[in-house]
Amino acid sequence: MEKIRVGILGASGYTGADAVRLLARHPQVEIAALTANSHAGKPLAEVFPHLSMLKLPDLVTWEEVNWSKLDAVFCGLPHGTTQEITAKVLASNPAIKVIDMSADFRLRDMDTYAEWYGGTHRAPDLQAEAVYGLTEHYRDKIAGARLIACPGCYPTATLLSLVPLVKAGLVDASEIIVDAKSGVSGAGRGLKQNTLFCEAGEGISPYSIGKHRHAPEIEQEIGAAAGAGEPIAVNFTPHLIPMSRGELCTSYLRLANGATPDDLRAALEAAYRDEPFMLVAKKGVMPQTQNVRGSNYAQFGVFDDRIKGRAIVVSVIDNLVKGSAGQAVQNMNVAFGLEETSGLLQLPMFP
Amino acid sequence: MEKIRVGILGASGYTGADAVRLLARHPQVEIAALTANSHAGKPLAEVFPHLSMLKLPDLVTWEEVNWSKLDAVFCGLPHGTTQEITAKVLASNPAIKVIDMSADFRLRDMDTYAEWYGGTHRAPDLQAEAVYGLTEHYRDKIAGARLIACPGCYPTATLLSLVPLVKAGLVDASEIIVDAKSGVSGAGRGLKQNTLFCEAGEGISPYSIGKHRHAPEIEQEIGAAAGAGEPIAVNFTPHLIPMSRGELCTSYLRLANGATPDDLRAALEAAYRDEPFMLVAKKGVMPQTQNVRGSNYAQFGVFDDRIKGRAIVVSVIDNLVKGSAGQAVQNMNVAFGLEETSGLLQLPMFP
Amino acid sequence: MEKIRVGILGASGYTGADAVRLLARHPQVEIAALTANSHAGKPLAEVFPHLSMLKLPDLVTWEEVNWSKLDAVFCGLPHGTTQEITAKVLASNPAIKVIDMSADFRLRDMDTYAEWYGGTHRAPDLQAEAVYGLTEHYRDKIAGARLIACPGCYPTATLLSLVPLVKAGLVDASEIIVDAKSGVSGAGRGLKQNTLFCEAGEGISPYSIGKHRHAPEIEQEIGAAAGAGEPIAVNFTPHLIPMSRGELCTSYLRLANGATPDDLRAALEAAYRDEPFMLVAKKGVMPQTQNVRGSNYAQFGVFDDRIKGRAIVVSVIDNLVKGSAGQAVQNMNVAFGLEETSGLLQLPMFP
Amino acid sequence: MEKIRVGILGASGYTGADAVRLLARHPQVEIAALTANSHAGKPLAEVFPHLSMLKLPDLVTWEEVNWSKLDAVFCGLPHGTTQEITAKVLASNPAIKVIDMSADFRLRDMDTYAEWYGGTHRAPDLQAEAVYGLTEHYRDKIAGARLIACPGCYPTATLLSLVPLVKAGLVDASEIIVDAKSGVSGAGRGLKQNTLFCEAGEGISPYSIGKHRHAPEIEQEIGAAAGAGEPIAVNFTPHLIPMSRGELCTSYLRLANGATPDDLRAALEAAYRDEPFMLVAKKGVMPQTQNVRGSNYAQFGVFDDRIKGRAIVVSVIDNLVKGSAGQAVQNMNVAFGLEETSGLLQLPMFP
Repeated sequence: MEKIRVGILGASGYTGADAVRLLARHPQVEIAALTANSHAGKPLAEVFPHLSMLKLPDLVTWEEVNWSKLDAVFCGLPHGTTQEITAKVLASNPAIKVIDMSADFRLRDMDTYAEWYGGTHRAPDLQAEAVYGLTEHYRDKIAGARLIACPGCYPTATLLSLVPLVKAGLVDASEIIVDAKSGVSGAGRGLKQNTLFCEAGEGISPYSIGKHRHAPEIEQEIGAAAGAGEPIAVNFTPHLIPMSRGELCTSYLRLANGATPDDLRAALEAAYRDEPFMLVAKKGVMPQTQNVRGSNYAQFGVFDDRIKGRAIVVSVIDNLVKGSAGQAVQNMNVAFGLEETSGLLQLPMFP
Repeated sequence: MEKIRVGILGASGYTGADAVRLLARHPQVEIAALTANSHAGKPLAEVFPHLSMLKLPDLVTWEEVNWSKLDAVFCGLPHGTTQEITAKVLASNPAIKVIDMSADFRLRDMDTYAEWYGGTHRAPDLQAEAVYGLTEHYRDKIAGARLIACPGCYPTATLLSLVPLVKAGLVDASEIIVDAKSGVSGAGRGLKQNTLFCEAGEGISPYSIGKHRHAPEIEQEIGAAAGAGEPIAVNFTPHLIPMSRGELCTSYLRLANGATPDDLRAALEAAYRDEPFMLVAKKGVMPQTQNVRGSNYAQFGVFDDRIKGRAIVVSVIDNLVKGSAGQAVQNMNVAFGLEETSGLLQLPMFP
Repeated sequence: MEKIRVGILGASGYTGADAVRLLARHPQVEIAALTANSHAGKPLAEVFPHLSMLKLPDLVTWEEVNWSKLDAVFCGLPHGTTQEITAKVLASNPAIKVIDMSADFRLRDMDTYAEWYGGTHRAPDLQAEAVYGLTEHYRDKIAGARLIACPGCYPTATLLSLVPLVKAGLVDASEIIVDAKSGVSGAGRGLKQNTLFCEAGEGISPYSIGKHRHAPEIEQEIGAAAGAGEPIAVNFTPHLIPMSRGELCTSYLRLANGATPDDLRAALEAAYRDEPFMLVAKKGVMPQTQNVRGSNYAQFGVFDDRIKGRAIVVSVIDNLVKGSAGQAVQNMNVAFGLEETSGLLQLPMFP
Repeated sequence: MEKIRVGILGASGYTGADAVRLLARHPQVEIAALTANSHAGKPLAEVFPHLSMLKLPDLVTWEEVNWSKLDAVFCGLPHGTTQEITAKVLASNPAIKVIDMSADFRLRDMDTYAEWYGGTHRAPDLQAEAVYGLTEHYRDKIAGARLIACPGCYPTATLLSLVPLVKAGLVDASEIIVDAKSGVSGAGRGLKQNTLFCEAGEGISPYSIGKHRHAPEIEQEIGAAAGAGEPIAVNFTPHLIPMSRGELCTSYLRLANGATPDDLRAALEAAYRDEPFMLVAKKGVMPQTQNVRGSNYAQFGVFDDRIKGRAIVVSVIDNLVKGSAGQAVQNMNVAFGLEETSGLLQLPMFP
């Protein structure tokens, strides 16, 4: 079989680097183009020396890409930009599949998009076409999709653990509290004071309480899972943790319809029995980000709450893999009809 | 004025070391005895080389201490042991003041103690005499106390932020959810696999969900603040964070009696207006453990929840200072009628 | 082709875990036995939850292993033990290949072994047979070997950078200074105070100055490379760094025979031109452990010294991969005639 | 006694913050002015929330400072700027004492300055007047000085351990090799990619090999100590370590005049017997940065080298305290005739 020729847009960010890490060893893929407009003309090894052993095309601007040579494009660009590029590319090369790791096509409601991303959506038609790329829950749609909007890292960790429970009516969707903790790579490679080693190290800080852009995305999908027809307000409170990779969400839930924590665990086990990357911890076992570092796996645990009628659900992922580049590759596999785990079976790295 | 002669029992643990760090520079204190039964005979510098510049008595066993030479004793011993030692010491030297940093005298209910600490309390009479040492809320009782049970680190961080709100009836005490995050020093200096650098580093893990011994302590005080006459079940979910010091508690609260998040902030400001160590962050400012590292300060923030009728309260402390040795020194200051801030004005160290 | 059936002895240590991580995804290998005497009877997932997704045989004691079912054994046991086990296994199953990751067969001189490891070697005949497993420099011997003594992590990082230079006579072998820095995983998973998070974090400390057991191993090979017939004294000064993985050695060298730093770089490039895992950085580019994390690659850099007639060589590896389990797998590949890179092409993980 | 009114220029950097931390609790000091041109008009608490409990003047531009109200000025400005400001200030307010923490007045030779700092010195007359502020070795000159050039952090760590040995002729000054390791705060609070958490964390990298600006400063003082009349070339090789604070220098030395490592230790003990901040470790004890974190102490250790005729000296400091703000305060104390330890006796913070 001929290899899938992929381009990676925004290859100088952490998500781009992890996409290269995975795709360069994917047996059915050839990396045919890499873009990073601020580093165009350089080899990737200059911006990511840990990839210096690879033979790769040099970085170019996205305007220089010959799209007709590509079968798939991974977008790791800042939000806003992606809409424009995607529209241009698909207009002239309708057979390309776009796997978007940005936030540009995640929100189905145009008003919500405008409210949270500071402006009108520039490709509403494509938004209507886009499939939300939470692989385990949108697999059928992804299989036929041309434009896949990969979820944010937090929504991935949250929704994978909660969607089966909400769908089954085991928890009260109107009062979900998600206390989220993320490693610093989630903030990207841009220069910001709060992600300096001396600022983020040896300390923990909440941020964007009640205002994080992943909240409306979670609310959209919780609403859909609940069959509500519209988003449902969710408490989403993220914290910055002194580690590079990993994300842990602790969700505080009110049980519904007489469900018990054991019922919740059973529901997750049933939902994910045949899933290659979904791991439900046995009763009493604590998920931790160390268990999934560098890998595409997610792990879940369910615990009793000391307050009656409530339960606690914990979920962990690697934010750059299952939370971004890994899920993107998984979606590519689905979209091209490949083995879904292809190129994604690296085991977690511990310590 | 003559100096207060103090003994520190259990000086080879992190809490003991921080008590030495503070007391050695306290202008009204002389460190007259240091115990560490497994290191008896050694200078403290051998177990804590960062204190090698101090002229201190060598470590002895607690059996070797001449109690008649002491005015106050700081206990940093494992639970259980403290009860026995305190009973013996106070029987023969009733004028000594015991400032206990262990868990031995924190729980007023003997059955609760037995349930959580695996056995019958060995000094119930002293328990009845002991004062709970949450300084800002038990100051009057501490002033006349002979036995002060300093709170656990998590209860300190939690209760300082919640007690004023519960007392004022601004939140529903029956549904408090506390998501807590602690640095690794909270687990002590004992050798455990989960506190090795390679296990705790670059990752986050919850632990003891629903089963942490600080839960009944929090419940006791929330119950008291609510005027309930008995403990109230609280969700307390701790996580281990890859940092040495610091503790952050994010509390998810249902508002009561029409209160708003702004009312909560105002209540904290009112409660702590004249307190030297209590810092209430302005609206929109995020507390972070970096702001209090190494110091006796606590910082609080109040935030809107996206779910109506709820609020989020964040509190931070240094678990070894305000959460242990610092609060103990503060209590000593109160008990001996000294300036409450004496020896405790070191500023937070950042970065 | 039938798969190679391997057993991993000492699978509950970090080196054992990384051997599993690599071998479980090796296309020509089947993990047929795992031992950990203190955890016998448990699934590996209980001691390494990050490997819970694998279908693996449960842990057994090494006495329970059916050696006749194995083609190769990876030893990650404490020193001393390995000699005995290897002798027994090879006596009854002479066709097995033993790939030893311990220190038991690294030192060719029995007196040196006795001096540094506190006792007489218990399998001197096997020592005579053992091949030193520095793959790039002993490949021919490894190809036919039955017992391969994989180098220590520090010797690997040091010798890979220095052996070509010493062999070429470009540096004075009698005055080599190696300042080494290692992540904490190099100290293993055993419970030691100095590897607790709070002790090793936020600080750096030298250790075992002039007395580290990797010094005689380095000296043996430097002596051999220099054609000296005997070991040559080397300054080897290790430091513990607050990171889990990675090792960086900075070597301070006196140039010989009129060589320049550029000559040294050229010599490394020539030596490693066709090597798949050896990366020589361009002039001016700094190697860093971040560039090889989690991978079997090594990177080298050569720099001018401000003191005339001297040069500085920097080398980096991942201590658990190229410094242990990865090199062991590489040696297995060589010994069994497989593609040398098989199962080892995972790219470095950054960040 | 009236308090010394100090101004801190460049209070928004890490060095400035640590100067505030120390000076705000100094019993004989009043902080009368704080400048940070890019943050003028803000309270310091906005740029350093860990100092929010202090009552301090708001940040102003340096042009707004009323110099006539100040007795002393601490400069933590970028190099170059300091020369201009110092010249202006001293011209109009000749009684002010300037304690410079920048690099502007450290190099006595104007050509060396121009070579390393990229331009002609703008205040050569003041340079001639400036005293090098390595307190323990220039105390007499500092006592009468009006302009004190505090050493760089690396020179402080290096020179404190080496100057007594070079002066005593115990080591060969022409072949000193200094392998230095620093926490990330040494790089300042500016936004640079290599000091992001994800770049500097979980890894170690050398930088500026042979080209670091602290090299000529070390060489100047080693030359002076050797009585050479001119700088002596020194190997100075710095590495970036994943910690915020702390600096460890491992110096590799050739012994001279028949000296032994024990002689070196004895020389350091003799030189520093009466020094309050200089700690010489006993034979066999390893200095580590954890021992001095947050404090003005320095610790030294001397070790045998496996190569005959050589020795190893290790020194540690906190780069922001003894390596910058602490030493500056110490110099202020000397210059104003105060107790030298005033305001500087905070003990190291561990863990």
